[in-house]
Amino acid sequence: MKALKDYTKEELLDLRTQLEKEYEDAKSRNLKLDMSRGKPSPAQLDTVMPLLDALNSSSDMKTEAGVDVRNYGILEGIPEAKKLMADMIGVNPDRVMVLGNASLPIMFDTVARSMMQGVCGSTPWHKLDKVKFLCPVPGYDRHFGITQMFGIEMINIPMSASGPDMDLVEEYVNNDPAVKGIWCVPKYANPMGISYSDDTVRRFAALKPAAEDFRIYWDNAYAIHHLYEEEQDEILEILSECEKAGNPDMVFQFCSTSKVSFSGAGISAVATSENNLAWMKSSMNFQIIGYDKVNQLRHVRYYKNIDGLKEQMKKHADIMRPKFEAVLQILDENLGGLEIGNWIKPRGGYFISFDAMEGCAKAIVGKCKEAGVTLTGAGATYPYGKDPKDSNIRIAPSFPSPEEMAEAAKLFALCVKLVSVEKLLETA
Amino acid sequence: MKALKDYTKEELLDLRTQLEKEYEDAKSRNLKLDMSRGKPSPAQLDTVMPLLDALNSSSDMKTEAGVDVRNYGILEGIPEAKKLMADMIGVNPDRVMVLGNASLPIMFDTVARSMMQGVCGSTPWHKLDKVKFLCPVPGYDRHFGITQMFGIEMINIPMSASGPDMDLVEEYVNNDPAVKGIWCVPKYANPMGISYSDDTVRRFAALKPAAEDFRIYWDNAYAIHHLYEEEQDEILEILSECEKAGNPDMVFQFCSTSKVSFSGAGISAVATSENNLAWMKSSMNFQIIGYDKVNQLRHVRYYKNIDGLKEQMKKHADIMRPKFEAVLQILDENLGGLEIGNWIKPRGGYFISFDAMEGCAKAIVGKCKEAGVTLTGAGATYPYGKDPKDSNIRIAPSFPSPEEMAEAAKLFALCVKLVSVEKLLETA
Repeated sequence: MKALKDYTKEELLDLRTQLEKEYEDAKSRNLKLDMSRGKPSPAQLDTVMPLLDALNSSSDMKTEAGVDVRNYGILEGIPEAKKLMADMIGVNPDRVMVLGNASLPIMFDTVARSMMQGVCGSTPWHKLDKVKFLCPVPGYDRHFGITQMFGIEMINIPMSASGPDMDLVEEYVNNDPAVKGIWCVPKYANPMGISYSDDTVRRFAALKPAAEDFRIYWDNAYAIHHLYEEEQDEILEILSECEKAGNPDMVFQFCSTSKVSFSGAGISAVATSENNLAWMKSSMNFQIIGYDKVNQLRHVRYYKNIDGLKEQMKKHADIMRPKFEAVLQILDENLGGLEIGNWIKPRGGYFISFDAMEGCAKAIVGKCKEAGVTLTGAGATYPYGKDPKDSNIRIAPSFPSPEEMAEAAKLFALCVKLVSVEKLLETA
Repeated sequence: MKALKDYTKEELLDLRTQLEKEYEDAKSRNLKLDMSRGKPSPAQLDTVMPLLDALNSSSDMKTEAGVDVRNYGILEGIPEAKKLMADMIGVNPDRVMVLGNASLPIMFDTVARSMMQGVCGSTPWHKLDKVKFLCPVPGYDRHFGITQMFGIEMINIPMSASGPDMDLVEEYVNNDPAVKGIWCVPKYANPMGISYSDDTVRRFAALKPAAEDFRIYWDNAYAIHHLYEEEQDEILEILSECEKAGNPDMVFQFCSTSKVSFSGAGISAVATSENNLAWMKSSMNFQIIGYDKVNQLRHVRYYKNIDGLKEQMKKHADIMRPKFEAVLQILDENLGGLEIGNWIKPRGGYFISFDAMEGCAKAIVGKCKEAGVTLTGAGATYPYGKDPKDSNIRIAPSFPSPEEMAEAAKLFALCVKLVSVEKLLETA
């Protein structure tokens, strides 16, 4: 296939006419598909239903240590749930607290606590003139939402296939004391699907922050969310790397079962140093008596251990894989060689990240929407919703059925072509 | 029985010798009882176990409106849970959000949000020189803990059998713009067990706050927690009273099923005006995608409606009543007429509040502890843990069995007598 940029004006005009006809046909099919969020599909959730039988009216409701989970107490989560979540991310259970139904509120509360109380005795951020966070881009819109809400200045850090641009990260973190944090999704990154290389993780661990209260927000959301049995990404465990590098307090790691059991009805965890745990507990003690231990025990009784979690994830992968493959195949067939977009084939996670020609993302998302396919808003993968190149689009294949997904991907490819042709015609 | 203050020194010395002997006997029984917190007993929790069967692997997991509770979404809670919780406190479901596993974090987050963002557009509290909360005393230690953590100045407001001293409340609220809130437990108050009179509620609703961002924190924790079928307290519904009085935005009302279903694994709710709900959601949107809707649906399917909740509470009352009555009977029998303590017989809630002679509470709690009975720390019912008269003690009869409770109450009465005799001997 010839690259679109090598088309003559005449050829582009012909192609546009043809694509516009196809687009009108597509619109007349009245699609109504949503690829906007990383939501599990009903089929995927159905595989989790036996979790609901793990506790019933004749269950023993005590932990191994004899604590009644139906009553108040145990701020840090029941020990067996700590073990389960620790194994999910490969850390020591002593470094883990198991908390509520999702990890986003832990991240939010950690930033809020830093704003109001200061990190481990440092000056509360609200008393500082300027607080900055580094934001690897493209990234997760809800991370950026938290820092934006608190008035924290966000700085874009370009991502590559091995992780964030570490030269830039080091330059900022090691020199600017206003830089207090960085948002990371280190494995099957949202939205790129790549995982941080060992070198990247080691460079993170070896940072020499100008700010004593600088922390890495390590959102290990897709730790066991592989698509394939044979090809699986693994990353270095950041807590122990930071310890080895003499930076034991530098990282908060987050994870949850939001995309293992039920979204918004799972259990979540934070893993960090003893100092950081003590600091977190010092205000959590006032915020809550304890999180939902009944649900923690339900998860422990059902999954039993890390092998149980992995079995669950195999079932999910079997459902997710055909959808990812459908999208990738359609992108290849329809856009391969045209040089109007780039994408990476992920081995896990929930997204495919698509980079269109500069200045085309918003128009593509708009065209898709007009024909009944909702994508994540263009720009959402950047702080302040502003993609400087208007290029990145996040595709979330998890929710629709494979058939719907194929249909949606075809429309998407058509819109990419149509918008790209129009872009090229502007200067042809 | 003669009042202890009318005893001669001789009589007091004789009594002390006798009480000390009794106390040594008691100690030798090696009691190990905990009356420190308002925790449900295992027997009470057992009556809730069928809740766990309400959802199982063959359940329909959709709301009436067809939303899959296993997936993300619905920040404000599922409509049927809103209805259930609204009926518990007698408000319009449109004014309700159903949130996580307990109500304490909602209160904490509401104060935190006021500190950081300001209430409905007002100046964030962290930018003000001084923020004050009124604290009816004796009150709930975890309320005072939140305001203390945020550095908010707490002002004691004496309680009577009809509620807080409203002359004082009006004086502060209507004149001091630094007064931004008041903590209230309006029904079966923690720890006094009294309920606010209609006049008290109306005077609350008719406040003319000097601060536009003044809010009443109305913690309706014991809304349906009656001990008796025939004698039940009812209070006026504060939201509609505030509306009538032209103060629609002045109150946040909180409630939960923490002491209906499982403690820390129930569902919680806030009820407030449309303006306040919009303000809360504006930052909750960044904090969380949605609370645990599976547990919300579980509660709805099991309890069905307010009648189901009331049936549950009857079972709890049958278990709680004998313990309350055992304590009250022992207090009557052992302390009646001695004029060394006052207590009120509550018709609901979780506590009995005991006022010892001035300067005796800490010593009584210490004596009990020494003999194996743990009470809530003396002073805990006051801001900063400081009871100016060292007089109030909170008794929590919910957790021990009736037999244990009787045993503990006898020891308590003994310690009250012993410490009071010693106090009187100081000046005899």
